[in-house]
Amino acid sequence: MSSKKIEKLRLYCAQINSTVGDFKGNFKKISFHINRAKLNDADIIAFPEMAVTGYPPEDLVLKPAFIEENLKYLEKIKKFSENIVIIIGFINKDFEIYNSAAVLNNKNLSSVYNKQFLPNYSVFDEERYFQKGSYDYIYEVCGVPFAVNICEDIYYSSGPTRFQAIYGGAKLIINISASPYHIGKIEQREKILFTRAVDNRVNILYVNLVGGQDELVFDGNSFLISEKGVILYRAKPFEEDFFIFDLFMENVDSTRIQDTKYKNQRESMKVENKPLKKIKLNIQKTPYTEKNKKLPDKKNTNINILNNKDINVDKCVDKYKELISCPEEEILKALTLGTRDYIKKNGFKKVVLGLSGGIDSALTSVIASFAIGSENVTGIIMPSLYSSEGSIKDSELLSQNIKIKTCIIPITPVYSSYLDNLKNLLKKGEINITKENLQARIRGNILMSLSNEFGWLVLATGNKSEVSVGYCTLYGDMAGGFSPIKDIYKTLVYDICNFLNRKYNNIIPQNILNKAPSAELKPDQKDQDKLPPYEILDKILKAYIEEEKDYRDIVKMGINKKITKDVINMVDSNEYKRRQGAPGIKVTERAFGKDRRYPITNRFKLI
Amino acid sequence: MSSKKIEKLRLYCAQINSTVGDFKGNFKKISFHINRAKLNDADIIAFPEMAVTGYPPEDLVLKPAFIEENLKYLEKIKKFSENIVIIIGFINKDFEIYNSAAVLNNKNLSSVYNKQFLPNYSVFDEERYFQKGSYDYIYEVCGVPFAVNICEDIYYSSGPTRFQAIYGGAKLIINISASPYHIGKIEQREKILFTRAVDNRVNILYVNLVGGQDELVFDGNSFLISEKGVILYRAKPFEEDFFIFDLFMENVDSTRIQDTKYKNQRESMKVENKPLKKIKLNIQKTPYTEKNKKLPDKKNTNINILNNKDINVDKCVDKYKELISCPEEEILKALTLGTRDYIKKNGFKKVVLGLSGGIDSALTSVIASFAIGSENVTGIIMPSLYSSEGSIKDSELLSQNIKIKTCIIPITPVYSSYLDNLKNLLKKGEINITKENLQARIRGNILMSLSNEFGWLVLATGNKSEVSVGYCTLYGDMAGGFSPIKDIYKTLVYDICNFLNRKYNNIIPQNILNKAPSAELKPDQKDQDKLPPYEILDKILKAYIEEEKDYRDIVKMGINKKITKDVINMVDSNEYKRRQGAPGIKVTERAFGKDRRYPITNRFKLI
Repeated sequence: MSSKKIEKLRLYCAQINSTVGDFKGNFKKISFHINRAKLNDADIIAFPEMAVTGYPPEDLVLKPAFIEENLKYLEKIKKFSENIVIIIGFINKDFEIYNSAAVLNNKNLSSVYNKQFLPNYSVFDEERYFQKGSYDYIYEVCGVPFAVNICEDIYYSSGPTRFQAIYGGAKLIINISASPYHIGKIEQREKILFTRAVDNRVNILYVNLVGGQDELVFDGNSFLISEKGVILYRAKPFEEDFFIFDLFMENVDSTRIQDTKYKNQRESMKVENKPLKKIKLNIQKTPYTEKNKKLPDKKNTNINILNNKDINVDKCVDKYKELISCPEEEILKALTLGTRDYIKKNGFKKVVLGLSGGIDSALTSVIASFAIGSENVTGIIMPSLYSSEGSIKDSELLSQNIKIKTCIIPITPVYSSYLDNLKNLLKKGEINITKENLQARIRGNILMSLSNEFGWLVLATGNKSEVSVGYCTLYGDMAGGFSPIKDIYKTLVYDICNFLNRKYNNIIPQNILNKAPSAELKPDQKDQDKLPPYEILDKILKAYIEEEKDYRDIVKMGINKKITKDVINMVDSNEYKRRQGAPGIKVTERAFGKDRRYPITNRFKLI
Repeated sequence: MSSKKIEKLRLYCAQINSTVGDFKGNFKKISFHINRAKLNDADIIAFPEMAVTGYPPEDLVLKPAFIEENLKYLEKIKKFSENIVIIIGFINKDFEIYNSAAVLNNKNLSSVYNKQFLPNYSVFDEERYFQKGSYDYIYEVCGVPFAVNICEDIYYSSGPTRFQAIYGGAKLIINISASPYHIGKIEQREKILFTRAVDNRVNILYVNLVGGQDELVFDGNSFLISEKGVILYRAKPFEEDFFIFDLFMENVDSTRIQDTKYKNQRESMKVENKPLKKIKLNIQKTPYTEKNKKLPDKKNTNINILNNKDINVDKCVDKYKELISCPEEEILKALTLGTRDYIKKNGFKKVVLGLSGGIDSALTSVIASFAIGSENVTGIIMPSLYSSEGSIKDSELLSQNIKIKTCIIPITPVYSSYLDNLKNLLKKGEINITKENLQARIRGNILMSLSNEFGWLVLATGNKSEVSVGYCTLYGDMAGGFSPIKDIYKTLVYDICNFLNRKYNNIIPQNILNKAPSAELKPDQKDQDKLPPYEILDKILKAYIEEEKDYRDIVKMGINKKITKDVINMVDSNEYKRRQGAPGIKVTERAFGKDRRYPITNRFKLI
């Protein structure tokens, strides 16, 4: 053991849900947490990346007025920084525009760190807006050197963390982040942070944004990880949260000194001669003042302040597994948060959706109920000539289970009226694609009429398998303002429903789960008349869309040549439909939309 | 005068219309031009940026199979390079992926130039896909040093042109480009090229792509500009074209030598020590062989080969002004090409659109007729209870003038049927937004039914003013596969129609131009009941959308505060509608879509 004195920092992690462009609302949340941090004598409070503006603001960044407003609010936040260090994400303007972290202390802007690694792949367009930063800083407060970097910066072993810790001697890295969710992301992110902490022998406070923004969901999951790679504490996933943690640092220096590899790296960096600025911050440790006592935060004075001295860090139990029992639960939480925030942040109170008696509308209605309460959800049952008796009954039973209002509006009279109107133009005889789509579009119109009349947001109910192959009707079942499960493959829809039934006592009627999927737009229709079984379809789609496998690769996986060819052709030729689809929550590693920018006009065919 | 011998290069500029992903079709065009260039004894033939793949291929670049296929076709093109230098855009794979120009000669890939400046603004995402190149090359053929760079490279005074010409001694720069059109772009581009030529005393052959790709139109307008800034020849705008030009270079070296500034720059560059590779290319000047005679290109052997020796370059008349009489004609050509290519490249033969009797559907139907021929256009007249008698007559007269088929389908029976169906849910009494939208959506459904039944592409007819403020119905008048005038402000719609009437003998009935704009969805409705006059609206929209002016700036322009506020709010709150709109042709400097990436969830309000 080293004989060096033990150092301590009291850290406040503010995992907030900012809204893009809502400077006033975001400021309210920010100042609330700063006040609470001060009342609890925190040394440092950290907020997520671009907490001031919300993330991603996209082309709002190109508006000079937007940048100005963000700077004006940073000025306001600065005034709260007496006797505390505030670290907060904002947009910096300094000849160029940067994605930055302000370090505020004693009513001063002590330093601005500009993000060095700008993601410009997947859903990210940061090179469109920002210049890359190039300077590193080491801050010192209460005798402890620490450093700040931003989201993507920590994803690279050669990034600023290494330089800040090994060369700059930082004992703590605060990474402020706006890292969106997808399946597997939470684990992936923690592995990277683990490696970064252990490789550089440095504690890391990771502060992530939480909340939904259009197609993205930020999952929170902020955490503090020790220099030995132990997650000391973790904020809740998929909701606003905070924690206060007394981080005792006794080992960092001693273990570093013993490590030859560490010393060698440090020597090699001296040669690089990279710029590094040292900045001293200042906190007066005084008792609460009379003034502070007046702050509207009395109810929180009993906050449990955690630390890594009293607990056995080797036995740290990861809270995550207590909160999230399985992947389906995690995804469901993402969908619920994304749907809630889209509805609320866009000023809606209630939603409406069509209930077909199928599994997709069942899951969507459950998500809507979880998101904004059953009392705010209305399901419309719109039977046609080809709807089975069971479909209506199943929808009604589901609605009773989840306690949403329903209304039955048969579409047959309107359908007959269209057929009569178009009788000289349409072919006589059996139901063709025109007549199938017509029925779906009448339903879309009815839902949109209710939206116009009552101000309800229409939720579309299509899943990723359908949307991928275009097994859906533009302006029909695709109609709606938001499409919660558009990035969920059909097989995953089943898995999530089964999870729901296990957890909530068969909330989804078994009939809905058992029946063969059907659009019910003509007699005895089944999805599998036109599509391969969903198990096979989803396998092809994942390979083609998420893994960029081509025809030859997929056939090598043992899948039938003709089926593979047909599916790839369907995916490629339905880009035009997806382009006009409602936004929905990204859940997979490769969602449609900003994440997969495809030309509609595209003659590329490998087959 | 210098006594140095006069040098000559015979240049072939191939301004082709590549289709994204159509390797076979693009190769056919490429090989056709190479054969013709060889028959005409050209020294160098140059094709546009990414001529092999089409541009922009967007996320197809992330498919390994797409890159492979592109390399396979480059191999095929290489085989055509006997006794000629071929310069062609493709995607290079060399550990990383680059946007590149291949220099092919005598069946070898002599060199690959990787683009150095990657546009990542406006509609461009090149940093998403490509690494930046860093090497410059000077090629020598027939004793003449020349260099190659790509599109954006030439937009910067500090870019490769300066280094290649001044340090490398290139007498000719070949810039291969895929530069999309917008109003003012052609002039802007030529000013830049003029400056680059004169500043660096270098001839420039600018080879641009032509054709439509989704929302973009590439305008062609390839040209050869002398080192004195004279446009020696120009290919046609908005169509495939080529030219062969004997470029005599007698002055470059002598004027360079006399120029002290030039010499000083050269000296300073020597210090920079940037890498520069010199590559010798080889052409055997032999007469036509028997083999060549067999090439299927006999009809073109009488091609007029231009040169800058026989003509008085000081009196070069710019062909552009002969071909395009006014801005309206230029825009109309862009719209026609963009519409034609969207239709044809996506495999459609015929289109259908709703004719309302208004000016937007009138202009759209004219564009459609110009694009694919009147015989392939069907106009559907869908009167409601609130349609004026004039509207039907005007639509019929227009259709006679432009010789398109029409069909009348009244929507009243279907409308009544909906109202009856929803009578327990909708408010009684006057026509509200629900009932207005319902009528528009019935029309959308009818057009989509005809599309499904006959395979016709539906053209939406909305203009930019409507789309900006959301004065349009989602799934109603917004329904369609393509929206030709979605980036044309209403006032510009009038200007273009007036131009059409001047040029084509009042093809658009005067009534259509004279009547007050109306959606005719309730009695005596006029657009101006809800919107400011279009002259004012369009002024605000241009300022807000294209110039990123804010509320304060626009009020300073002398526009009423309330009107400004209302318009800005309408633009912001209708992003969700635009997100689901059909693609249409970018014509302004800032179009909706890839060019303006806005969050739907956005609480930013300056007012």
